[in-house]
Amino acid sequence: MQQALAEAEAAARRGEVPVGAVVVDAGGSVLAAAGNEVEARGDPTAHAEILALRAAAQRRGGKFLQGCRLFVTLEPCPLCAAAISLFRIDRLVFGAYDPKSGGVEHGPRVFSHPTCHYRPEVVGGVDQTAAAELLRHFFSQKRDSANSAGR
Amino acid sequence: MQQALAEAEAAARRGEVPVGAVVVDAGGSVLAAAGNEVEARGDPTAHAEILALRAAAQRRGGKFLQGCRLFVTLEPCPLCAAAISLFRIDRLVFGAYDPKSGGVEHGPRVFSHPTCHYRPEVVGGVDQTAAAELLRHFFSQKRDSANSAGR
Repeated sequence: MQQALAEAEAAARRGEVPVGAVVVDAGGSVLAAAGNEVEARGDPTAHAEILALRAAAQRRGGKFLQGCRLFVTLEPCPLCAAAISLFRIDRLVFGAYDPKSGGVEHGPRVFSHPTCHYRPEVVGGVDQTAAAELLRHFFSQKRDSANSAGR
Repeated sequence: MQQALAEAEAAARRGEVPVGAVVVDAGGSVLAAAGNEVEARGDPTAHAEILALRAAAQRRGGKFLQGCRLFVTLEPCPLCAAAISLFRIDRLVFGAYDPKSGGVEHGPRVFSHPTCHYRPEVVGGVDQTAAAELLRHFFSQKRDSANSAGR
């Protein structure tokens, strides 16, 4: 989770919403790590989880990530929760809960339906204070600069 | 929807699950069209909708597709439903309903939660017989060839 937090911090420095994700294989090796790249790519689906999952699968040379864990600093949104299931991640470990946009413990709760064909084990709230603080600081700075620009 | 069906047929010829998608702008121009490329890309998120949405946004040079419609031959899964919301598509028109894996009228019903920040207008069941027949034929051939291989 420390590496995921570092990816989130790096994303914030690039002006992206600070979320970071890391895929680790069964032996504990990091397969891929990514931060949010929505602004850089002009793609609202370029979330940290999607980029890390895709890169990890490419590195393994297969379509699936069975046996792997995904660490991400924020509760995945519905898009990322669905991707986690499609890539067949074994265990999802996330930081801060996201009541506004989360899709695991909130909103559509993507893993909780009989039509979800692959469910990871889920552990939420790991290092959540650090992850939430990064987000709080980022949006507080955004508001401050928007207020200054409005003067 | 005819063009989306043609994309689905082309996907089947490449050995992909036959689903096709087309993004059309407010003036009726086709911005992007795509078929499933899960096998070709080794990426379980390379669904027709995702590829078409991303290509359409790149063509428009922006992050969002407000004012646009997405035509897709099959009810979008939760991943694609979430992406449709994130790209801010105005109207989703889909063909066959998908009780097993759909995410719009089935399963997590992604657009039906207060945490869904952008909801398209949804029209389902358009040309559904043609879309469903393509899928039925594809999976029936798959089963036949699996049975032959097992002999």
